[in-house]
Amino acid sequence: MKYPSIINNLIECFKKLPSIGEKSAERLALATLDMDEDILNVFSESLKNVKQKVKNCRICNHLSEGDLCEICKNVEQRDQTTMCIVEEPKNIILFEKLGKYNGLYHVLGGLISPIDGITPDDININSLMDRIKDGNFKEVIIAIKPSIEGETTALYISKLLEGMPIKVTKIAHGVPLGVEMEYLDSLTLEMAFEDRQDIS
Amino acid sequence: MKYPSIINNLIECFKKLPSIGEKSAERLALATLDMDEDILNVFSESLKNVKQKVKNCRICNHLSEGDLCEICKNVEQRDQTTMCIVEEPKNIILFEKLGKYNGLYHVLGGLISPIDGITPDDININSLMDRIKDGNFKEVIIAIKPSIEGETTALYISKLLEGMPIKVTKIAHGVPLGVEMEYLDSLTLEMAFEDRQDIS
Repeated sequence: MKYPSIINNLIECFKKLPSIGEKSAERLALATLDMDEDILNVFSESLKNVKQKVKNCRICNHLSEGDLCEICKNVEQRDQTTMCIVEEPKNIILFEKLGKYNGLYHVLGGLISPIDGITPDDININSLMDRIKDGNFKEVIIAIKPSIEGETTALYISKLLEGMPIKVTKIAHGVPLGVEMEYLDSLTLEMAFEDRQDIS
Repeated sequence: MKYPSIINNLIECFKKLPSIGEKSAERLALATLDMDEDILNVFSESLKNVKQKVKNCRICNHLSEGDLCEICKNVEQRDQTTMCIVEEPKNIILFEKLGKYNGLYHVLGGLISPIDGITPDDININSLMDRIKDGNFKEVIIAIKPSIEGETTALYISKLLEGMPIKVTKIAHGVPLGVEMEYLDSLTLEMAFEDRQDIS
């Protein structure tokens, strides 16, 4: 191993990222030598501060630089009577890019999975119920991928909401099994959104 | 796009790296949130300094933190009479990992390609010839991948060395271990045929 130590450091850092192996890490580390100085500075600064600056929104658990995320802060323009429940922050970005939804979100941060020992208490369900009790929601849309864990979680939430004067829907099963939601095309996603079914 | 700006910055930076698209960049940027603080600091520092600290060795053009690389500096232990010519610094690492070669290297930094307008003057051939004239080399090994550009470059260098009291060799091109022959391209197969060796 005769690379300068700084290159070896970069290789080790890139390898810590998901699905980056030894060869890819080496290629990426060497590629930084061809990047513009300005971009490297932004890259460096962003990595240094990302963990301090990026927190979870106090209300919905979306990623946020402040106490509240941009969506929760935007009380005037976002429909306060509709809530979309998602697994991860990146799902919010997907729906926002669609531009068809203008309500609020709630990020669970995981799915119920008895096999993995993940109970309702391990994901953001208590804060979800607090929001729903304190709020004025007319519809709650469950937008979780259809897996065993996803269905379990959806069922659990719909049971909790039973008897409340709230329409509970979930996105249609246009979403195929076994794919990550971010790899779906926007049309499928849009259909799934429009075909959401009443399960209340 | 409702990510915090620092996440958007990271996505843009990751996208500047080779073969990292929009989706991968997003995934990598979000993954930094799960990295250890210590690793992020090393990552950040390394990116900030990589261009200032990593230079090319004044003799062989390998990557180096100082004026000379570790291999050129190590005059006592490296065989000063053998030189291996490679295209890129990472090729040196490959041969060093093999541990079978103890001579010197010369990095061309590219291959001759008339179609792309890359002439011998655009790659490190002048410095190569200076080294060979000033040095005491007995063998020069051309270790370049077998492509049209690679063959052109190898031929050009071997012509320059003609008449000098130096043995010029190139690494064997042929059928690699562990592949089915029907999946090999015809050029490789042709080379394997032409370079066949007498085993009688």
